[in-house]
Amino acid sequence: MPYQQILEDIAREVAPLAGAGKVASYIPELAKVPPGHFGMALITLDGRLYTTGDAHERFSVQSISKVFTLSLVIQHIGERLFERVGKEPSGNPFNSLVQLEYEQGIPRNPFINAGALVVTDELMRHQPDAKAAVLDFVRRLSGTPTIQYDPAVAASERQTGFTNAALANYLKSHRNLYHDVDQVLDAYFHHCSLSMSCVELARSFLFLANHGVLPATGERLLSASQAKRLNAILLSCGFYDEAGEFAFRVGLPGKSGVGGGIAALMPGRWAVAVWSPEINRHGNSVRGMKALELLTTLSGESIF
Amino acid sequence: MPYQQILEDIAREVAPLAGAGKVASYIPELAKVPPGHFGMALITLDGRLYTTGDAHERFSVQSISKVFTLSLVIQHIGERLFERVGKEPSGNPFNSLVQLEYEQGIPRNPFINAGALVVTDELMRHQPDAKAAVLDFVRRLSGTPTIQYDPAVAASERQTGFTNAALANYLKSHRNLYHDVDQVLDAYFHHCSLSMSCVELARSFLFLANHGVLPATGERLLSASQAKRLNAILLSCGFYDEAGEFAFRVGLPGKSGVGGGIAALMPGRWAVAVWSPEINRHGNSVRGMKALELLTTLSGESIF
Amino acid sequence: MPYQQILEDIAREVAPLAGAGKVASYIPELAKVPPGHFGMALITLDGRLYTTGDAHERFSVQSISKVFTLSLVIQHIGERLFERVGKEPSGNPFNSLVQLEYEQGIPRNPFINAGALVVTDELMRHQPDAKAAVLDFVRRLSGTPTIQYDPAVAASERQTGFTNAALANYLKSHRNLYHDVDQVLDAYFHHCSLSMSCVELARSFLFLANHGVLPATGERLLSASQAKRLNAILLSCGFYDEAGEFAFRVGLPGKSGVGGGIAALMPGRWAVAVWSPEINRHGNSVRGMKALELLTTLSGESIF
Amino acid sequence: MPYQQILEDIAREVAPLAGAGKVASYIPELAKVPPGHFGMALITLDGRLYTTGDAHERFSVQSISKVFTLSLVIQHIGERLFERVGKEPSGNPFNSLVQLEYEQGIPRNPFINAGALVVTDELMRHQPDAKAAVLDFVRRLSGTPTIQYDPAVAASERQTGFTNAALANYLKSHRNLYHDVDQVLDAYFHHCSLSMSCVELARSFLFLANHGVLPATGERLLSASQAKRLNAILLSCGFYDEAGEFAFRVGLPGKSGVGGGIAALMPGRWAVAVWSPEINRHGNSVRGMKALELLTTLSGESIF
Repeated sequence: MPYQQILEDIAREVAPLAGAGKVASYIPELAKVPPGHFGMALITLDGRLYTTGDAHERFSVQSISKVFTLSLVIQHIGERLFERVGKEPSGNPFNSLVQLEYEQGIPRNPFINAGALVVTDELMRHQPDAKAAVLDFVRRLSGTPTIQYDPAVAASERQTGFTNAALANYLKSHRNLYHDVDQVLDAYFHHCSLSMSCVELARSFLFLANHGVLPATGERLLSASQAKRLNAILLSCGFYDEAGEFAFRVGLPGKSGVGGGIAALMPGRWAVAVWSPEINRHGNSVRGMKALELLTTLSGESIF
Repeated sequence: MPYQQILEDIAREVAPLAGAGKVASYIPELAKVPPGHFGMALITLDGRLYTTGDAHERFSVQSISKVFTLSLVIQHIGERLFERVGKEPSGNPFNSLVQLEYEQGIPRNPFINAGALVVTDELMRHQPDAKAAVLDFVRRLSGTPTIQYDPAVAASERQTGFTNAALANYLKSHRNLYHDVDQVLDAYFHHCSLSMSCVELARSFLFLANHGVLPATGERLLSASQAKRLNAILLSCGFYDEAGEFAFRVGLPGKSGVGGGIAALMPGRWAVAVWSPEINRHGNSVRGMKALELLTTLSGESIF
Repeated sequence: MPYQQILEDIAREVAPLAGAGKVASYIPELAKVPPGHFGMALITLDGRLYTTGDAHERFSVQSISKVFTLSLVIQHIGERLFERVGKEPSGNPFNSLVQLEYEQGIPRNPFINAGALVVTDELMRHQPDAKAAVLDFVRRLSGTPTIQYDPAVAASERQTGFTNAALANYLKSHRNLYHDVDQVLDAYFHHCSLSMSCVELARSFLFLANHGVLPATGERLLSASQAKRLNAILLSCGFYDEAGEFAFRVGLPGKSGVGGGIAALMPGRWAVAVWSPEINRHGNSVRGMKALELLTTLSGESIF
Repeated sequence: MPYQQILEDIAREVAPLAGAGKVASYIPELAKVPPGHFGMALITLDGRLYTTGDAHERFSVQSISKVFTLSLVIQHIGERLFERVGKEPSGNPFNSLVQLEYEQGIPRNPFINAGALVVTDELMRHQPDAKAAVLDFVRRLSGTPTIQYDPAVAASERQTGFTNAALANYLKSHRNLYHDVDQVLDAYFHHCSLSMSCVELARSFLFLANHGVLPATGERLLSASQAKRLNAILLSCGFYDEAGEFAFRVGLPGKSGVGGGIAALMPGRWAVAVWSPEINRHGNSVRGMKALELLTTLSGESIF
């Protein structure tokens, strides 16, 4: 079945799931997003684009931005990052302090919030203006110079982000944060506030499906080994405490955000992004997960 | 045996324990205290004072101040406090985030750090200038208007108090902190920086041995039932995760601080304070605990 | 107010609490007990007995038996027991495996189930027939040679005691159980099945109120220091994860059982037992706790 | 590079790692295995076999047997199994009781010991002689009717398997075990005692690389979707608390055992097994993990 038809079938099949989740409410600004949106975009390595629904509308990518920050840090220091952060699935909610305490300030992986704070802190050692660095990187990946942070979302997160402030302070108490707590949080909240469309997100994930090379320019961003390993972390840790469920039902490396977006990829083939703001209690988009499950079923493509 | 002789015997017996603990180092200012100090003061309800060693030298009372803050809050709102904080022993180190997460933002008791932050926050609802309120209360209790906060200790704690900042932010994320995180921390760190001598501390605990009435003035500060219950919390929770050990070896309600002080009391008889800066890995003074164990053994007095 | 009148007032005051708890159902045999019972007995050191309600009716003492086993072991090896078991409050339900795992097979105190299994195992080293030893001890304490185990309760517990079997096996895996798992469980379940009345229980606790000496015979069972320390453990650990609440509301060393019994004591004065089968979610008798709270309030006696 | 050469290069490269791990000692019978062994076998879907070292020597497959039990249960009841056991990575050691307690008797995945006990229990509902069923299945998968359980290993594990007995009892206390604890343990310990060579193991994993069809006979054992999902669980959960590390370094679905074996597969291509008895502190073969890492590096094949 051609991808375009697959996407349209998916859009039809997931429509009845409207209402099965809830728009994220812990950040007031996110709670304003209308729940009904659904968009999906798939781009092949050779540049063919398939879309359905609100694939061109921008939304808050939230934790999906952690993939960009991590890629940049891997560019700078490679696997030395893993002296400061683990790469094991967490088995706990994304903002758990418990795990951090038992593991004495070493976050379990780069995609739980504590891990992403460490990654941000590490990025700041190499790129003091970490906000500009990530924005620039995403614009290059997507070929879209108009991508912006959403200052209202960043400010909203800052005003209510007490759990992240707790994590950052705790990391600091374990000497696993070099910079000032407030500066790290400021960069982190900005990264999360990136506003992108499914098309832009899918395009930004293509280099991970292409063994580290950005297809549009031929530029190598990561070594093949680094790209493979980043994909492994995405598969193991990309979906909070539903990583196993996602591997089981979908079987693709990917990353979700509480804004309702998910970006994923099939190595050697394509990248995909889907957006639907209603999330389940684990923080993952209900229609988004179903859409990707249908994609691998209907296309017969999965890494397993 | 008369109390004076008991105290002198104790001073002699605990001397060989010098070096068995370590001066608290996590607050740089505390680390400067010479380890060799030992002082002890016992005051009976009828006002007789017995001392040995450095009983008149002031030191940083640290967590012992939590008894003063708690007493003030009990004066204001009584047991309604216990909607915001528990009264069970913690079984975990004093600054554990784990417990706070499992119990969803309700600290287990008022003497772990998270609990003391909630108590401080509650005090601020009734006495906006919580720093002045505690200082004034302690001066009244001890009859010593010269007692002061140590600004160097407060500042030192503030600069390195990332764990407490993590706890305060986490409480805030669970809506169990009404005031601004920084304001609560500022009051809390000042309370901990109180500088008092054993004589002053022992005098300040007399009202708890006297069913809530300050012996020097006859003023009732707590009801008899409130004083009894506060003593119960001291026995259950006053020694971090060594509360059971302290009950077992000593058998008195009391409270320790990482500055090496311990204040305790025998209901209906006397209050006592001891100071020796070397603490064990649980945060309790090594010579202080031994001194109080000897006190109950030699005097034959204990609540059990 | 004379004790007899206090007990009658208590009986009247706690009556309306009928229905506020539930009879323990996890052991089928216990679930058969009619919920309406209430009995209470207080005995002074000089032998005066006061009773109300079903004070002479026998019931399953369950965990209260742990005090007898522990006393016997303390007789045999004193404080060396505490190399195998701690003496800190647990802050967790009485049958928690979590704590045992974090503390690598050393139960936190002798009154959580894991701790009592270790105490039973230790007793078997000194008294191979641990069932006969405890029965004999209790008969001596209470001066009542007719006290028996209830074989139906012991059998019922054995058939459904999978959590205790889990704990015993886990202790064995940490080499903190010398005897065969099944033998230890058999002794333990028999001890729990002891059937005693409030009068018999109160009499059996008198030696702890009398600094280790059985008042009826003048026989010293524990040294004064041992009795004091056992009382300290009772206060810290005698009520599962409500030890703090009990210290706060009642303020006496004591021990509860899921059969609805509680035995407690006022050092130097008296011992008391109360029975009412409806327990709260922590495993403690609802009317029993209230009765003891009223006892300390109305008599004005408490260790604090 | 041809597979044969890759295997020989690997054998040479991992040789210096001898001594970097330790032979499993918690089962006395396993501790007798000489540490020096190294064997490896790779079989392609079209039946070509490549071997190096001790590839034909049998060893105790231990936890690798969990893949066979799970496959059989999936054959019988499909995904309904996942009402009794999760499919999320555990983030804890393979025999953790903590997780089981927090998740109220639902093991996190089928490959931690508690999960495998539930899978065994489920198998017994459909194949009362679960020992014969697994043995028969493995003989069919490998085309080797001589495969046997090792009774000495099974007996050794039974005598020392107190942690597994604790887990089984705990599952029973949560009503997540239908059969008698001893019967389930007996079947489980026998499954773990399977004695197989690398060649036999690799052959037994081929159907998972072949979308559920046994290549030798063309027989469909699992649906394509079931095979894909089983592979996902292998990747997420197959290596105790090193699943992330294995995905990161190797990037293949697989399963390890404390006997030092690892079996893995490349979907659509081949299956592989490696054996070297020295394991790291996570229970995974040191040389085995390195060998598989080199295999994906030298062959350029990985699912990522």
